[in-house]
Amino acid sequence: MTDSILNTETVALDEEKCALVIIDQTKLPYSTELLTITDLKELWDAIYLLKVRGAPAIGVAAAIGIYVYTCSLNVSRYEDFAEAVEKACDYLNSSRPTAVNLSWALNRMRKVVTDHRGEDVTALKALLHDEALRVKEEDTAMCRSIGEYGLSLIKDGFGLLTHCNAGQLATSKYGTATAPMYLAHEKGYHIRVYCDETRPLLQGARLTAYELSSAGLDVTLLCDNMAGSLMQQGLIDAVFVGCDRVARNGDAANKIGTSVVATLAHYHHIPFYVCAPSSTIDLHTATGADIRIEQRPPEEVTEMWYQRRMAPQNIKVYNPAFDVTDHSLITAIITEKGICYPPYQFGEETL
Amino acid sequence: MTDSILNTETVALDEEKCALVIIDQTKLPYSTELLTITDLKELWDAIYLLKVRGAPAIGVAAAIGIYVYTCSLNVSRYEDFAEAVEKACDYLNSSRPTAVNLSWALNRMRKVVTDHRGEDVTALKALLHDEALRVKEEDTAMCRSIGEYGLSLIKDGFGLLTHCNAGQLATSKYGTATAPMYLAHEKGYHIRVYCDETRPLLQGARLTAYELSSAGLDVTLLCDNMAGSLMQQGLIDAVFVGCDRVARNGDAANKIGTSVVATLAHYHHIPFYVCAPSSTIDLHTATGADIRIEQRPPEEVTEMWYQRRMAPQNIKVYNPAFDVTDHSLITAIITEKGICYPPYQFGEETL
Repeated sequence: MTDSILNTETVALDEEKCALVIIDQTKLPYSTELLTITDLKELWDAIYLLKVRGAPAIGVAAAIGIYVYTCSLNVSRYEDFAEAVEKACDYLNSSRPTAVNLSWALNRMRKVVTDHRGEDVTALKALLHDEALRVKEEDTAMCRSIGEYGLSLIKDGFGLLTHCNAGQLATSKYGTATAPMYLAHEKGYHIRVYCDETRPLLQGARLTAYELSSAGLDVTLLCDNMAGSLMQQGLIDAVFVGCDRVARNGDAANKIGTSVVATLAHYHHIPFYVCAPSSTIDLHTATGADIRIEQRPPEEVTEMWYQRRMAPQNIKVYNPAFDVTDHSLITAIITEKGICYPPYQFGEETL
Repeated sequence: MTDSILNTETVALDEEKCALVIIDQTKLPYSTELLTITDLKELWDAIYLLKVRGAPAIGVAAAIGIYVYTCSLNVSRYEDFAEAVEKACDYLNSSRPTAVNLSWALNRMRKVVTDHRGEDVTALKALLHDEALRVKEEDTAMCRSIGEYGLSLIKDGFGLLTHCNAGQLATSKYGTATAPMYLAHEKGYHIRVYCDETRPLLQGARLTAYELSSAGLDVTLLCDNMAGSLMQQGLIDAVFVGCDRVARNGDAANKIGTSVVATLAHYHHIPFYVCAPSSTIDLHTATGADIRIEQRPPEEVTEMWYQRRMAPQNIKVYNPAFDVTDHSLITAIITEKGICYPPYQFGEETL
């Protein structure tokens, strides 16, 4: 990561302007453009269009976004304030249906308001400010902790595969799937990291390969269909991926293709680790079958990053954003609280 | 397939000009550009740059190319003629090392010359002309036969997955993996065909989706990493792929990612069929470990079809053209002579 980006946080609050500042990730790796957002619709679009992406980063952005929204909210009655915040949360929550962190972070913001029923609006704004920053600080601490647990599963010389970007750019710092890699590198381990490019939006090529190589790690990029070939050759010792939602039984929804990597790892007897902040574990979801999978526009596939059409006109396209990896394919789920091994049975007591 | 292409053969001999005519497949699906080739270096480049691609089509192009080369060969002694043909064959053979059809077709042309030692150069040219056209006609008959055997494995209503383009555009007609699909469609079966886009060069999106949808089949395009999701949902009843080289034990080299699809099919208990002209069965290769895999330039991955860079500068890239599917993952190998089931043990008597 170049200094300019190392010093640029993925998601930040500009206190002076009361604005959310994000890196426009659709512009990476060519240019680092910062977006200053004060408008709720603009934030909805930024989330939908993946300008900010990665479940934890989306959660942090939404929390800060709600606080920013209240800065310019000109109401004085508690009821009006509470209703406006409620509506804003509902609205933002509709931007990406699969990522549970989004609703989790928004629920924390809602709870601040409902827990302080009848309080002064100025006081409520200050409480929302603090809660949003707390969501962010906790995210950094959570990533570091996942990194430490993940590091215990890595040996010097390992070849590691990852899919999509569960990296620093998807969180406030360290990333989730990349956190063990950053910590291994800090420790002086010589590890080789292989990044699936991750079609259709190329988060692996544009973001993961970028942030890891800029930080000095030994990174090799490959197309998604090449991971099997690497595994056949014995070049992969472990797979680390992030996730967007984990069901009670350990089924995990993550970027489309994750279940393919898991199936390959299973076949080749390679450990497959899911790095899951506990906020992604959804106790309301019994199994992966209950996870709603977002379908995205065909042009993402047919027009190659909107540059030039690479498929016949009017062709039907299958373009789900996520797939579900069956719990039986997951060697362990790493949260900030520890490493969970099968059989997975998540409940209140494990969170 | 639009009429203009249906009527345009993938590989043809222009008798009048003594020229090889091919469709420039790197220009599909935007435009159908015909290349008229009389120069050996130009043909070498066309094969290397995938302007003509697909093992059978490469074989036919090389056979016609050798005849075309001799048209302008101004020698009168048998020895000089034989030496020139030998050198031309060696040269063309170096353009794509993995496809066995290339060397197989070139060896047929060589054999014409060595079998008629001492004969008149004009007679030899006529013999080479006939042999080249025979290579092409046999290819069409071979594809039709593979199609009929493959059709016996398909039921009305099936969902079929294919990878890369082992289609009409890869052969003189019908294709190999697509032949059962074309024949099923002719028979009035309602089949759904799913095409992996096949990174990095997108043969599935550009060629297979194009030729099948143009022929009126129900086609859906997907990214390579989405096949697992389709299989999870029970949408795939069988997989048909082509191949570039089959070893004696049934290990099959084909476009990178084929082994990934095979592993997924195995996991989901879906039949996985390799359509292999007997010319791709290489008795000199004991197992897949003996197959040399071509590595291709990193820009194919990083520059998204040479349009715009989609990865950081100087990133290392893993870009093998092929992978080897282990024989244990292959339900059956369909040749023009019949359907081979495991255990595979190819020998002279099976060819």
